[in-house]
Amino acid sequence: MDPTGELRFIEEMIGKKLNGDLLVGVGDDCAVIAWGANRFMLVSTDILIENVHFLREYGGFRAAGEKAVAVNVSDIAAMGGRPLFLFVSGSVPDEDSLRELAHGLRSGAERYGCIIAGGDTSRSDTGVVNITVIGETRGYFPVLRSGAEVGDLIGVTGELGKSHAGLRAIQSGVTDEGIIRSYTLPVARVDMGVKLAEVGVKSMIDISDGLGSEIRHICYAGGVGAAMYRDRIPISQEAKRVADMLNEDPLLYALSGGEDYELLFTFPPDIEDKITSIGDITVIGEIVDKDKGITMDGESVPQGFTHM
Amino acid sequence: MDPTGELRFIEEMIGKKLNGDLLVGVGDDCAVIAWGANRFMLVSTDILIENVHFLREYGGFRAAGEKAVAVNVSDIAAMGGRPLFLFVSGSVPDEDSLRELAHGLRSGAERYGCIIAGGDTSRSDTGVVNITVIGETRGYFPVLRSGAEVGDLIGVTGELGKSHAGLRAIQSGVTDEGIIRSYTLPVARVDMGVKLAEVGVKSMIDISDGLGSEIRHICYAGGVGAAMYRDRIPISQEAKRVADMLNEDPLLYALSGGEDYELLFTFPPDIEDKITSIGDITVIGEIVDKDKGITMDGESVPQGFTHM
Repeated sequence: MDPTGELRFIEEMIGKKLNGDLLVGVGDDCAVIAWGANRFMLVSTDILIENVHFLREYGGFRAAGEKAVAVNVSDIAAMGGRPLFLFVSGSVPDEDSLRELAHGLRSGAERYGCIIAGGDTSRSDTGVVNITVIGETRGYFPVLRSGAEVGDLIGVTGELGKSHAGLRAIQSGVTDEGIIRSYTLPVARVDMGVKLAEVGVKSMIDISDGLGSEIRHICYAGGVGAAMYRDRIPISQEAKRVADMLNEDPLLYALSGGEDYELLFTFPPDIEDKITSIGDITVIGEIVDKDKGITMDGESVPQGFTHM
Repeated sequence: MDPTGELRFIEEMIGKKLNGDLLVGVGDDCAVIAWGANRFMLVSTDILIENVHFLREYGGFRAAGEKAVAVNVSDIAAMGGRPLFLFVSGSVPDEDSLRELAHGLRSGAERYGCIIAGGDTSRSDTGVVNITVIGETRGYFPVLRSGAEVGDLIGVTGELGKSHAGLRAIQSGVTDEGIIRSYTLPVARVDMGVKLAEVGVKSMIDISDGLGSEIRHICYAGGVGAAMYRDRIPISQEAKRVADMLNEDPLLYALSGGEDYELLFTFPPDIEDKITSIGDITVIGEIVDKDKGITMDGESVPQGFTHM
């Protein structure tokens, strides 16, 4: 579904209702619920469908379980939070698949220090894994998508395009396990998200649908535009290598390929030193007036990856 | 999956870990999280798969959405709680289905007074709806499955077998809309659950997989047995009518048919008057020593409905 379609669906459902306990509802990476004195609960849900979000022949249901955890935890990271509890639904074709899935979920939970606190199982020919993750921030309000202001700088963590490189490798019969792993087993940037929140980023989102799509969410939520620069985008070596083999443009992997799960964020220029000293961060542009649109080297940026 | 298989899966995943915030984890209708002074958060997740839990030709994705809400809210009701927030994942074949689903979810949310606080959408040929519901109890600890004691009485709300009657009607071409509705649009007994908790029931569960299966969960969790009486089981008129037409035993609809979403609970005999004065309640037997097993008129009770 294209982002607009998903937004329409969500707006149709709810109209952004809130109440005393629900401080942020639909429309950000997580909902925010008041939990205690300067403590905030984050809740997010993500569904992974076989052949859309994972492939049985690459890592099986074990990898699917681990990936499902990472994808969900990434939404918590995107608000500067730490994950606590996972609620998992799995629908798989048989008991062996269920066992594999359970192992993958457990590995994922251990990696991110979460507890699996609830679950439901069913059977279907096509595998489905849904996770709802509950996390928290303590001492600060979660970082929303909506805080970007004109003059802020735009940063990303890590390297982009690596997950799409993995997918293209699979699709093209390139058997490089390291590259394929970027697609089958992405990593959520929890520690990075917490550090960025503590240093004072103003808006943040995880890159699940490509930089081109996520920068749109940041700009839409903040009522601003963005100017980015092609030669600053940290394109991964994997993306360059696969794109080179397939005679494709690696920049498009970063812009329109999904599922890198790096973090995209904005911050005022006066904290640039603090931000870059965290390490593994690249400043790729700045927030501009809404009228200037969303550009790369002055040209309009393509929309990004869509699952539907 | 048979209940034993699901338990094994869940145990394999976790080993019932808890921490300071997570007071009850996997194994009950909901997880329980500390929320405030004498306030408890309940969290549960349930997945509905097309052709396993709902049929597109009966009410379409709209009915599927409403049913998904009821099924999830029922887990909150089973602990004496009230539902607050829904996190919904929907995977459907096209945009029209998504719109239908959204309407059903909204109707369900309105019926139970919840807010849809988060969501995710995807596309798949076979429809999938997953909901995670967050609810609460205020002023009392949630009612667990595990509190049954020898000498307690066993009660149920409403009438049983109606949902399975609806399913059998569909399968057999009986076109009685009222009966079919019991299957396509079950109702969660939230007010009833709260009243029962306030009066002081000792254990409670919702009847999602048939009385025969749920009484097993209560007995397993409490380390007790149960003696029930055939002529006391409140079998619904719908079940009697459909079973009569198809020359089947309506008692089996109640024992082994799933998805009635009534409440099964136990309580000490000295509060029987308070319990029955709530209305729409039948006392169907008593809790006995574990060694006496789970019986009906002295005979062993069949296992109940399984989805897998």
